[in-house]
Amino acid sequence: MQVDIVKITKDKREEIKDIVTNEVPFTIHLNGRELLTLLSSPDNLKELTIGFLYSSGLINSIDQVKNITIDTRNWISHIDLTEDNKNDELVFKRLYTSGCGKGTLIYNTLDLIHKRKITNSFKISAEKIVRLMRTFQNSSVNFKETGGVHSAALSDGENISVFKEDIGRHNAIDKVVGEALIKKLKFKDFIILTSGRISSEIVFKIMKISVPCLISRSAPTDQAVKLARSIGLTLIGFVRGSRMNVYSGEDRLV
Amino acid sequence: MQVDIVKITKDKREEIKDIVTNEVPFTIHLNGRELLTLLSSPDNLKELTIGFLYSSGLINSIDQVKNITIDTRNWISHIDLTEDNKNDELVFKRLYTSGCGKGTLIYNTLDLIHKRKITNSFKISAEKIVRLMRTFQNSSVNFKETGGVHSAALSDGENISVFKEDIGRHNAIDKVVGEALIKKLKFKDFIILTSGRISSEIVFKIMKISVPCLISRSAPTDQAVKLARSIGLTLIGFVRGSRMNVYSGEDRLV
Repeated sequence: MQVDIVKITKDKREEIKDIVTNEVPFTIHLNGRELLTLLSSPDNLKELTIGFLYSSGLINSIDQVKNITIDTRNWISHIDLTEDNKNDELVFKRLYTSGCGKGTLIYNTLDLIHKRKITNSFKISAEKIVRLMRTFQNSSVNFKETGGVHSAALSDGENISVFKEDIGRHNAIDKVVGEALIKKLKFKDFIILTSGRISSEIVFKIMKISVPCLISRSAPTDQAVKLARSIGLTLIGFVRGSRMNVYSGEDRLV
Repeated sequence: MQVDIVKITKDKREEIKDIVTNEVPFTIHLNGRELLTLLSSPDNLKELTIGFLYSSGLINSIDQVKNITIDTRNWISHIDLTEDNKNDELVFKRLYTSGCGKGTLIYNTLDLIHKRKITNSFKISAEKIVRLMRTFQNSSVNFKETGGVHSAALSDGENISVFKEDIGRHNAIDKVVGEALIKKLKFKDFIILTSGRISSEIVFKIMKISVPCLISRSAPTDQAVKLARSIGLTLIGFVRGSRMNVYSGEDRLV
């Protein structure tokens, strides 16, 4: 959105037009019932819905999605699943009865995801990571305009295959996951790049899609490092210029 | 936490010890019932509990807190309120029945806060903001060590009165709010500084404490700007070096 602002510099006061990033309260309705509201950027809401359900462990395949419609007047997505979805009732049961109030929805649903080792022979060089991260950062148009979004991407180690932005770092990753599912890409051949910090919640999402590497411009937490090590995920942070810190899974670096 | 990492620079690969920031799942029990789990840094949990309840509109005064104990073995706070708390049943009702699943808890509870105009004659100069922001950034020890936390502060316009850090930008503000309540500081004489981006959720929190100015190193969203303008909050973003963008309430700048 364009807004009138006052820009103050050392010796100057200017009234200018500036662009701020857009935010909407986006509500997901699952099988006719309201599931939750995310604060998000108002684009790629189909990808966000599918990616959120998948990375939270609520669906295990895009084939479970019967249909999905996005209402961009009220910022609601209506998603219906095929009958063979086992987690749906479990989620609502958690939400509406005992589990409710236990935590944020995200924290509740993420424990539907079973811990499993990532056994994957993917290899990548430090030079390629540096190059990819440069391309990744240059792709972020909305960030350059507003400074108000995070970005995430899926890469095969050579190119950026899917690139998304959102005001939320979790949402940006979910949009990437959603588009990858729609395009039927195989996660095991890809790595995830993100501009945002890596908490345990982010690693849980990555565990669900089983990509071998997670690469960030920013810092991880101790829980993220522990979890990454326990599942065999390559976790690289602070990729800036030609430097980077490898927190876990250095064996995938050549 | 100290971890062994591999640091890669242009021509070098080094095995070094590095510090990553700590993360815990922190659960608040309100009047004997589990309310929610926040991912947070493991310090100032009393301040976080009280600040969260207050900035979410669940309590209106620290006098409503009968007692609070922090269990740092299991990362749980037990907080009991005096009987004259009206919002408690409302919150659980929302959580356990119809409102449950409507959104994240935060989004649900924030609408307990009524919109009200901030009418406050506080004034500050751009030079003071620049100086305060410099002090603010230099105060962040955990950030300097780990790069993994946000910081927030309360300032009277001259000095930093309360300073807190957390892996979550919302939590950092809630810790500041909690300590201010414990110390019986009057919010109307203070402004809030934050390292993080400003979404509508953050402005809702600020609305609850009615400080006249919110100052950030980062970007606001369009909803944050609209809300700030509608309640008469001075919102200043991108304070970097001697530059800043005034998005709302320029009349408080002298």
